[in-house]
Amino acid sequence: MSGPPPAVILVRPQLGVNIGAVARAMMNFGLSDLRLVRPRDGWPNPDAGPAASGASAILDNARVYDDLAGACEGLHLVFATAMLMRPLTRRVVTPERAVAELRALGTSEGLPGGIVFGPERTGLETVDLALAHAVCTIPTNPEFGSLNLAQAVVVFAYEWMRQQDTMPPEELMNYAGPAAMEKLEALIVDLDRRLTENRYFSEGPGRHEAAALTLRNLLTRPQFSEAEVRTLRGVLRILNVPRGGDQERE
Amino acid sequence: MSGPPPAVILVRPQLGVNIGAVARAMMNFGLSDLRLVRPRDGWPNPDAGPAASGASAILDNARVYDDLAGACEGLHLVFATAMLMRPLTRRVVTPERAVAELRALGTSEGLPGGIVFGPERTGLETVDLALAHAVCTIPTNPEFGSLNLAQAVVVFAYEWMRQQDTMPPEELMNYAGPAAMEKLEALIVDLDRRLTENRYFSEGPGRHEAAALTLRNLLTRPQFSEAEVRTLRGVLRILNVPRGGDQERE
Repeated sequence: MSGPPPAVILVRPQLGVNIGAVARAMMNFGLSDLRLVRPRDGWPNPDAGPAASGASAILDNARVYDDLAGACEGLHLVFATAMLMRPLTRRVVTPERAVAELRALGTSEGLPGGIVFGPERTGLETVDLALAHAVCTIPTNPEFGSLNLAQAVVVFAYEWMRQQDTMPPEELMNYAGPAAMEKLEALIVDLDRRLTENRYFSEGPGRHEAAALTLRNLLTRPQFSEAEVRTLRGVLRILNVPRGGDQERE
Repeated sequence: MSGPPPAVILVRPQLGVNIGAVARAMMNFGLSDLRLVRPRDGWPNPDAGPAASGASAILDNARVYDDLAGACEGLHLVFATAMLMRPLTRRVVTPERAVAELRALGTSEGLPGGIVFGPERTGLETVDLALAHAVCTIPTNPEFGSLNLAQAVVVFAYEWMRQQDTMPPEELMNYAGPAAMEKLEALIVDLDRRLTENRYFSEGPGRHEAAALTLRNLLTRPQFSEAEVRTLRGVLRILNVPRGGDQERE
C-alpha cells in the first residue's frame, strides 16, 4: 500500500553526533536508507553510534559516496533542502508537498526517492541543488531559520510518518463510554436535592431552574463514565453531612 | 489573526544540551515561552547555551518551577506528551490535532496553551499526565518509538509553523514563465528540420509524425522559459554541424 521510504542523503556532514541523531530520527519514523557523501571526518565515525541511541542498524547499513550524483543511484525523485533562494530555475515545495509526492510515486509506481541535506555550516551548494528535481524549504522563523541537521531530518521523517499514520486524530483512552443516562440523572437529582436542602438556590421565579440547568450542563458535557458518576455520588454523600452532625442514612 | 504560541514545559529535564536544542528548535519555528520544572542539574546550565546556537534569548527568559501545576500558570489548554498508555481516562490526540486545538483557542479566544514533555529516560509520570487536559502521542515506529527530547519538541514546533504557514505548497523560483508559444514552436520546427536532414525519422506511414509528437511532448511539458528555449536552440546549432564539417550559417 505504501511505497518504499525515501533515502536520506547527507552531503559532506561535519559532525558524527549529527549523523547519529539523524539515524535515530530516521528509525523513529520508519526510514532506513542513509547515504553519506564525503563525510568530513571519514566513516565510520565513533561519535555517531552513541548519538544514534540504538539505531545502529541504520549506521551499519549507511553507504558512502564520492559525490551526490552517485548517491542518487536508484532514486527516481530527489528533493534538495535549502533555505536560501539560489540562481536556478526549480520548483520549490514545502516538506508536506515533497513527502506527498514521494508517497504518491511510491504508491503508484513503486519507485523510491530521496531527500538531500547539506553540511551543517553552509547548507547545500547551488551545484548540489542543480542535481535535484526540486528544492524543498522548511518553513521557519525568517529571523532564525538555521535548523540543526538532525532536526531538519526530523521534519521530513515525521512528515513521512504523519502522512501514513492511521492513528485517529483523537480518541479516549481507558474509557468505557458514558454512563447510562439514568445513572447520570440520578446524580443530578441527588445533587439537586442536597443543594435544595442546604438552601443553595436563590428564591425568585425561574432562579432554581436556571441554576439547575447550569449544573446539569456542567455534569453532562464531560460524558462521565459510570465509574466517575459513582465517584461523584460518593463525594456528595461524604461532603453533605446533615446539619445535625449525624452521619446520613441513605 | 494567530493566537499566542504555546509554552513548552520540560519536566525534570536531565541534559543541558537537550534544553539548549529545545530552545533552538523553538526559535526556529516561532515559539518562545520555555518553562522548566526542576531541571536535574539546576539552572542555568552551562551546556544549554552552546546547544541553543544563538537562541539564548529563550534560555534567558526561561522560567523555573517547583512543580508542573505551577508551570501551567496562565495556560488554558495543556497537552502532555506520552508514548505509553497509562491508567487514566483522557483524550489522546495526534500532534496535528493538539496544535490545531491550541491554534483554535488562540485564534478564537486569545488564550495560550502549553505542551508538556517528560524527562529523557522515563517520560512523564502518570501524576504529571493527570494534570493535563489531554495526552498527545507522536506517531512513531512501534519498535523504536523513543524520541530524543529536542526532536519531540521539533515535531510540535514544526506543526505550529506548518499550520500557520502561508508558503504555497509549490512554486517555481527564478522562473519568468513559459516562453511565448511561437518561440517554443520555432525550436520544435528547427529540431524537426535538423533531424529530417540527418535521417533520424524512420520511413513508413505515420512514423515521422509519431516520433515528432514524442519530441513535441518532451519539449512542451517542462514549460521551458524563453531563456531555456534560446539555450536549447544554441545547443542544437552547435551540435548539428553539417556533414561537410563546415560551420553552419543561419
